[in-house]
Amino acid sequence: MKKIEMARDRLLANKSMFVAVQGEQGEPELGVSTFVRLNECIFVYTSHLSRHVRYLLNSKTAVCLLCEDECSSQNIWARCRLKFNVSINEVSRSDRRFDKLCDEFIIRHGSTMKLIRNFTDFHMLSFTPIDGVLVIGFAKAFKVEGSEFKIVSHLKEA
Amino acid sequence: MKKIEMARDRLLANKSMFVAVQGEQGEPELGVSTFVRLNECIFVYTSHLSRHVRYLLNSKTAVCLLCEDECSSQNIWARCRLKFNVSINEVSRSDRRFDKLCDEFIIRHGSTMKLIRNFTDFHMLSFTPIDGVLVIGFAKAFKVEGSEFKIVSHLKEA
Repeated sequence: MKKIEMARDRLLANKSMFVAVQGEQGEPELGVSTFVRLNECIFVYTSHLSRHVRYLLNSKTAVCLLCEDECSSQNIWARCRLKFNVSINEVSRSDRRFDKLCDEFIIRHGSTMKLIRNFTDFHMLSFTPIDGVLVIGFAKAFKVEGSEFKIVSHLKEA
Repeated sequence: MKKIEMARDRLLANKSMFVAVQGEQGEPELGVSTFVRLNECIFVYTSHLSRHVRYLLNSKTAVCLLCEDECSSQNIWARCRLKFNVSINEVSRSDRRFDKLCDEFIIRHGSTMKLIRNFTDFHMLSFTPIDGVLVIGFAKAFKVEGSEFKIVSHLKEA
């Protein structure tokens, strides 16, 4: 179990994640965003100039993927990854958490955040993880639950 | 233009890509697959034990993303990436291209393919790229078209 949790935690230490969301006509949209994880929520700060972000603002759910880099993968056929469903809320600029979150982004992702912090096309979104699947190799898939990504069972399918 | 095409071609040299597809209830599903590019099509060989693959087999379209590794990104806020829409067809095991494609996978991705080549839960899917967006930095987004990913215009939004 320790090894599985370590693999999960390495993925949670990623700087960015892939996000798929349902588009206006039901079509899937896909993007990549930096994130911070704080108080068991995941936050992204991203611009509505990207279409998938406009859909995130309209949709209340999305599916996220944390994936190890290609260059770190032992076997490219079985990249370590954590896929999970989230519910979405926007954190408004007047929310008392907004400034603290911006500071976290600066700590985690550098000074670009200082530049874009006041750009009003950007939105702070809060993603609450619901459930998901951790894959750490062939036939090594595990169901995870909740915002702590607790490992609850071994899956035969992923 | 040369620099833009080089960035695109570096992404096309990736070994794997992210794929988002519409699920049964309209929800998005997301996965990552190795691929080979041959004769202007992209091929993936993947198992229907993964839910997103069952959806790929049912759906005739998907959206794909090639993304540079985190560790190679100059600025994590603006990872180089190529997102594109595809139409999907299955290449059956009796198709004359099937064996050649399996050989290409061995050349490109190693001996795992020898092991899984005869696994009947795996399917060879042909993705034909239609159009997409190449992002190589802040405000550096370009529309691409066709299976050659020809760069056709500079976009203000991505």
